[in-house]
Amino acid sequence: MTTPLFDTLAIIGPGLIGSSIMRAARAKGAVRKIVATSRSPETRKRVVDLGIADEVTETNEEAVKGADLVIVCVPVGVCGEVAKEIGPHLAPGAILSDVGSVKGSIVRDMGPHVPKPVHFVPAHPVAGTEHSGPDAGFAELFENRWCILTPPEGTDKGAVERLASFWRLLGANVETMTPEHHDLVLAITSHLPHLIAYTIVGTADELQTVTRSEVLKFSAGGFRDFTRIAASDPVMWRDIFLANKDGVLEMLGRFNEDIAALTKAIRKGDGAALYDHFARTRAIRRGIIELGQDTEAADFGRPHGHED
Amino acid sequence: MTTPLFDTLAIIGPGLIGSSIMRAARAKGAVRKIVATSRSPETRKRVVDLGIADEVTETNEEAVKGADLVIVCVPVGVCGEVAKEIGPHLAPGAILSDVGSVKGSIVRDMGPHVPKPVHFVPAHPVAGTEHSGPDAGFAELFENRWCILTPPEGTDKGAVERLASFWRLLGANVETMTPEHHDLVLAITSHLPHLIAYTIVGTADELQTVTRSEVLKFSAGGFRDFTRIAASDPVMWRDIFLANKDGVLEMLGRFNEDIAALTKAIRKGDGAALYDHFARTRAIRRGIIELGQDTEAADFGRPHGHED
Repeated sequence: MTTPLFDTLAIIGPGLIGSSIMRAARAKGAVRKIVATSRSPETRKRVVDLGIADEVTETNEEAVKGADLVIVCVPVGVCGEVAKEIGPHLAPGAILSDVGSVKGSIVRDMGPHVPKPVHFVPAHPVAGTEHSGPDAGFAELFENRWCILTPPEGTDKGAVERLASFWRLLGANVETMTPEHHDLVLAITSHLPHLIAYTIVGTADELQTVTRSEVLKFSAGGFRDFTRIAASDPVMWRDIFLANKDGVLEMLGRFNEDIAALTKAIRKGDGAALYDHFARTRAIRRGIIELGQDTEAADFGRPHGHED
Repeated sequence: MTTPLFDTLAIIGPGLIGSSIMRAARAKGAVRKIVATSRSPETRKRVVDLGIADEVTETNEEAVKGADLVIVCVPVGVCGEVAKEIGPHLAPGAILSDVGSVKGSIVRDMGPHVPKPVHFVPAHPVAGTEHSGPDAGFAELFENRWCILTPPEGTDKGAVERLASFWRLLGANVETMTPEHHDLVLAITSHLPHLIAYTIVGTADELQTVTRSEVLKFSAGGFRDFTRIAASDPVMWRDIFLANKDGVLEMLGRFNEDIAALTKAIRKGDGAALYDHFARTRAIRRGIIELGQDTEAADFGRPHGHED
């Protein structure tokens, strides 16, 4: 076991991400003590039953008292409220962070409530599954995934480095960028894919000519991969689209131009244009495998864990 | 071992699907002898080296002589040509089938070249991976997947049942429908998902503001699941979109209406509309898991085979 990087970690919102941080922090000995809290009595009870926190408090205020690392893991839309509530109770010198998938709005909403002696270092671990709640978390969630830090200008460098060390200990690679750039990058790598997946799954469900049972049965043809994304937490995703409206609309505009071009190629029977486009996208997949962000093992059409 | 259902199986085009049929047919003792052929000398040599056929011929004509089951496993766009070439050499009473992802065009292109004493039973095993070629196949590919048969009106029922038994022995569930209905069902469950995945991966690659390296690094946020689909064989998919133009354009029209509605909700900041849509799509995912067409295990953000 390493020496703990922090004394007390407070997690506000022990859902998929929050509870995974708790599990990973304990497994790696990253902190001495873990305190968790949730607005929901059921979630608090579940965290007690799972035994993944050293202490579960009823209020946010109690949770953050004395904590030197506070990570807010609630939907992006309520992060500002939570910051306002806990701001006055944060310990001087503590690091306040979050895990929100949008960073511009986090800086805007949480920033003003952070008292001077507290270091505010927004973060976004780019990892997740389509499941939610404290039962869905697991300690390995962040291994070999990226965690993006978006400290506002003037943030103490030592504090940023301490939080980076925490995430590295949990298995993540750390990168730092501005909140604005983060929101553009995530608009294309995450937000637009989710929006499209949500759309097509809804489209399929409203067809008159094809039954839902047929859609489900023959989903192995590609549709299935979209449903996994479209099963993600609805509150979390509603907040993301509202908070990163500009980034998402920008990427959506480009996507619409591109799908219009491919549609035209189909309508005109332009096989060469289709082939050129499809051949190009293969190379991108190879890049992802080379970077270790997915495995080479083929996935659809067979159970996970299958070995060739 | 069961008694073989057929004496000699001829596979024209031993790629991912063709070579998987060969492997599965041998593993299950479905046929006595397997003959394979390919236009490409490299592929023929590879099949010999892999030892997955009893005989590899240089021409399609040689391959089908004496075979009582012939399965054409080439891209949809060249199936008609192949049928024209092999038609005169098919054994009376033989079953001629294919594995094309579009069925209307297959019936139109292959049908006229099938001599009377041959039973023409088009088929589509809804299974695959993003890999291509004889090395990519594996015997378990069809297990618990669906195989759709689309016999033209008047096809001998006994022949349809014999082919259905073959696919069941390979592990598949079998369903029969008209070619036209098949093409609508697959347009939404497979062709549109692929078109969209190809589009967004291309969109991401052309951005000025976000580098390709950033897209690759942070792909675990959702984008990665699209790249897997967008890495599928470009020739196969070019042919599918050209052959199922009407079905794809129909579904694309509906998709565009739906994404316009969600875009408007984002632009207006209508959180309730977004939430309602996202909550509905979750139920569809559950249906797919209940039908055994995917596992409950979460996938993105961690290596395949991970157990909770």
